[in-house]
Amino acid sequence: MKEFFCGTSEITGARFSIHPMSDRFVDIILSSLKETDTTKVWMKSDDVSTCVRGRSEHVFDVVKAIYLNASKGGDHVVLNATFSNGCPGDSAGDAFMAEDSILMNDELSQKINQEVATQFALYPLGFLGYMDVIIDQIKTVDQHGVFSGGVHYASRLDGDAKKVFAALESAFESARNSDSSHIVMTVTMSANSPSRKEGQ
Amino acid sequence: MKEFFCGTSEITGARFSIHPMSDRFVDIILSSLKETDTTKVWMKSDDVSTCVRGRSEHVFDVVKAIYLNASKGGDHVVLNATFSNGCPGDSAGDAFMAEDSILMNDELSQKINQEVATQFALYPLGFLGYMDVIIDQIKTVDQHGVFSGGVHYASRLDGDAKKVFAALESAFESARNSDSSHIVMTVTMSANSPSRKEGQ
Ligand SMILES: [Ca+2]
Repeated sequence: MKEFFCGTSEITGARFSIHPMSDRFVDIILSSLKETDTTKVWMKSDDVSTCVRGRSEHVFDVVKAIYLNASKGGDHVVLNATFSNGCPGDSAGDAFMAEDSILMNDELSQKINQEVATQFALYPLGFLGYMDVIIDQIKTVDQHGVFSGGVHYASRLDGDAKKVFAALESAFESARNSDSSHIVMTVTMSANSPSRKEGQ
Repeated sequence: MKEFFCGTSEITGARFSIHPMSDRFVDIILSSLKETDTTKVWMKSDDVSTCVRGRSEHVFDVVKAIYLNASKGGDHVVLNATFSNGCPGDSAGDAFMAEDSILMNDELSQKINQEVATQFALYPLGFLGYMDVIIDQIKTVDQHGVFSGGVHYASRLDGDAKKVFAALESAFESARNSDSSHIVMTVTMSANSPSRKEGQ
């Protein structure tokens, strides 16, 4: 039950899944995992999703690299991720908080250009002023030049995946510095969608 | 900007996407939409996700039916959904609050047996006691006989999709009756996963 008592730890986690809309989905997922350096995060996969935990910058670095590696072949690939900060870690996770800040996958990720369409939502918990945090972070993503407007229950970002990830990470980190002690951010990111090619 | 001011409306919404891990993903999605009666919900799809809004029971009925129709052919299909209550509607959405309670897809859904593995999380916003609501709703899903325990950042449900949906809807409705005025629930549901068959 210890996951239920949240509020102080600095460990960031992401629970995510990668969905290649292809008969080759198993190969695509396995090779994207293989091409990604995950040595600086705690990581565990089950039959529904994968969880990575550690320093916030490494969590974003790893999720971004896995997604870029999965989508670079041109398949329609969707990422669904929930980023979370404010639930305490455990000894297995906290061990990774001692890692340095050098990103293990940035050089590889910088070489991959991939247009994506993204919808995200931010949920600052345990805090009456949560709407102010959300509005502030819309301004943050807008400064990154990828904000495309609001839709019901989400905000939309379009552009190169690296820029979109930078905006998402920036919004998440700024929200962490708000008065909310527990921040959750959901992300749905789509690459190479045939609907998109048809002009949506 | 009006979506940013939340708190009073009874309209429920779900923003979701269906991911068939198959080369036939377009056909699978289009036929599952065609087989589902969506007359009692406001519905709009874009290239990233689909949003349905209306009375809570119809939102769950429609998402469940679309997912069952997409997965009944045996393909590995994942649902990612965020259910939300507490953001105000608009005239287009509120029109659907006048519908009666008779479910349009229940007869069809009852005929489809589909084992699923599910991870979900509940986020009661604007409320300091959010952890109590989460713990109460773990008890609610446990009463439905599908709760398999906690994982980092989520709770796991296993069983027939109809039972799992009943547990999710029950938890969501109970959370709506809590002191939180804005309830968000994320769901990742997987059917026909090859990882699962291998015994995970
Ligand atoms: Ca309520």
